[in-house]
Amino acid sequence: MAECPRTGARAGIIHTPHGEIETPVFMPVGTQASVKGLSPRELLADLDARIILSNTYHLFLRPGHETIRRLGGLHRFMSWPRSILTDSGGFQVFSLSELRKVTEEGVLFRSHLNGDAHLFTPESTVDVQLALASDIMMVLDECLDYPAGHEHARQSMERTLAWARKGYAHYRRRIEETGRGGALFPIVQGATFPDLRRRCAGELLALEADGYAIGGLSVGEPRELSMEMVEATAPLLPREKPRYVMGVGMPEELPEYVARGVDMMDCVMPSRNARNGCLFTSRGRVIIKQARYKEDPGPLDPACGCFTCRNFSRAYLRHLYQAGEILYASLATVHNLKHYLDIMRGIRHAILIGTFPEQLEAVRSMSAPEK
Amino acid sequence: MAECPRTGARAGIIHTPHGEIETPVFMPVGTQASVKGLSPRELLADLDARIILSNTYHLFLRPGHETIRRLGGLHRFMSWPRSILTDSGGFQVFSLSELRKVTEEGVLFRSHLNGDAHLFTPESTVDVQLALASDIMMVLDECLDYPAGHEHARQSMERTLAWARKGYAHYRRRIEETGRGGALFPIVQGATFPDLRRRCAGELLALEADGYAIGGLSVGEPRELSMEMVEATAPLLPREKPRYVMGVGMPEELPEYVARGVDMMDCVMPSRNARNGCLFTSRGRVIIKQARYKEDPGPLDPACGCFTCRNFSRAYLRHLYQAGEILYASLATVHNLKHYLDIMRGIRHAILIGTFPEQLEAVRSMSAPEK
Repeated sequence: MAECPRTGARAGIIHTPHGEIETPVFMPVGTQASVKGLSPRELLADLDARIILSNTYHLFLRPGHETIRRLGGLHRFMSWPRSILTDSGGFQVFSLSELRKVTEEGVLFRSHLNGDAHLFTPESTVDVQLALASDIMMVLDECLDYPAGHEHARQSMERTLAWARKGYAHYRRRIEETGRGGALFPIVQGATFPDLRRRCAGELLALEADGYAIGGLSVGEPRELSMEMVEATAPLLPREKPRYVMGVGMPEELPEYVARGVDMMDCVMPSRNARNGCLFTSRGRVIIKQARYKEDPGPLDPACGCFTCRNFSRAYLRHLYQAGEILYASLATVHNLKHYLDIMRGIRHAILIGTFPEQLEAVRSMSAPEK
Repeated sequence: MAECPRTGARAGIIHTPHGEIETPVFMPVGTQASVKGLSPRELLADLDARIILSNTYHLFLRPGHETIRRLGGLHRFMSWPRSILTDSGGFQVFSLSELRKVTEEGVLFRSHLNGDAHLFTPESTVDVQLALASDIMMVLDECLDYPAGHEHARQSMERTLAWARKGYAHYRRRIEETGRGGALFPIVQGATFPDLRRRCAGELLALEADGYAIGGLSVGEPRELSMEMVEATAPLLPREKPRYVMGVGMPEELPEYVARGVDMMDCVMPSRNARNGCLFTSRGRVIIKQARYKEDPGPLDPACGCFTCRNFSRAYLRHLYQAGEILYASLATVHNLKHYLDIMRGIRHAILIGTFPEQLEAVRSMSAPEK
């Protein structure tokens, strides 16, 4: 692992049964066993993605984890040969489902699809993810809305801690029984309180996990506060283990998280924004529906080498968007994800050759006027 | 050109500035400058499509043919290196637009997008298609609903004839002026009346066109009647020129049209049905949402070598369909179009090796129980 001598940035390699993942890494989100608009072929050939994220909550509800298990696991189900990280389902339970009730045992919720009641426990979410056979699994955690009071956040964090211990104990039993299973990452919670974050991180160290996540960020808090929480947490986590900040971020934030010692990130931003007509380029954002692009023959981003930029004009992308063509979503998603993955590859390269602090400074001065 | 000695089937090659097209050929439909769900890469690599169809009416309204002309023509606009056939817009004017008024001059209609009034004339639709720079253009024709009375159909056919003459005269002037332009096919009309079809075909011969189309079929008439109209028309058309039946057909009908001397066909059926969950296979139709496929690990069609069948299970396709994932549309469309194109390639091969009559018989006996 290479470390930047002036920031907390690190460049490493994560090994899973489905290959090597160079870090820092951004993971495209494949919510329902599909990165919306892309086939595995594009993820491989156009993006060279090494790992994608899929959502346990969604797959649990549809098609069901037992169905996926019987079909040979998630990799085979979606025909994806490289690594998969699954979340615990906690975030979606707290953001999508109705009538949830949190107890020490777990969280009772109703499906956003049909209203059926389900219980997620620290143990059951491990079992669901074992059925999916993901390479990196997450423990069940409670996610709070922003803002949350200190006492509420403390109780919630204690519950997340207790769940992590239970989930881990269950995970170790299962590994012992079957001899197999992916890595399991616990999640540091604590809302926007550094003392709770530090306490949670410190306690989770005892689990000796293969990696640690920082959760509960990007839930509406100011970006400075997100960064502060990462600063309070990351240095406490084991130096030799990957650190994953869940659900971030904007393109200009990626190097900021890396500078604070983060190795893994994910966000629906690049893919969702792509579908909504907001495209990230080296020269800033392009809102493709704007009339100025109607007869623009140039590529979306002249500095980008993605399939979309190599082959299609802004005018064509605008036309596809206006016409509601499916192809728009694919071409836009390829571009935005390539933009994110290229940013991360550039960051990794800068760390390795020792120029990351200058790169970070350049990004900060470029994005400053937008603030 | 090879001809079947026992049927009217022919195997030939059409040359355009964008390559050779082996016939009989089925043309995927790219209505709005995109075959829904596919990129040109898939059309090339997965389907080896030699020619696609695009709709003049749609492109005229959005993004506008002048926009496409300024962007270098339709091939460049959509990044499609092979041949393109455009229809005249007539069919969509008669099926999609409102408040249309047909005169000798042309057809006045209101856009289905925003209600704007436009006039299509035999001359203007040639100019629109010249702006698109398509390889094969069609003359403006009037399409009647089924059923139509003989006198109404006769008047309409006469108008289509007059339009064809005007369109052709205009086309020849333009070619003379600019030295370039694709081929222009007139369209045989005459509703379901063999005498009108024969009369129309006979008159159109004087235009000495590079190819001829048979239009106004697949508008609700019984399939026997469609076949009868083709039988009445095709033998009158020049032996050495391609014959194109517009808007057909079902998989089992493809060899029937070929047996009647047809070289080119197009239909939204394979792509639209794909998106709607109806998939064509060598063993019949698969309605992918059915519960029986929920845990079916097999390929959609074991006899198919398409990207979808090589990589994904029926269970996964069903999941994507149920979840409303974009990827479903792409994978389903690749399969259905490959199925159609493979049928045509199989027919061509059978014609060339002299076994087409047996192949036709086999298809008839297989599809008989469904009637």
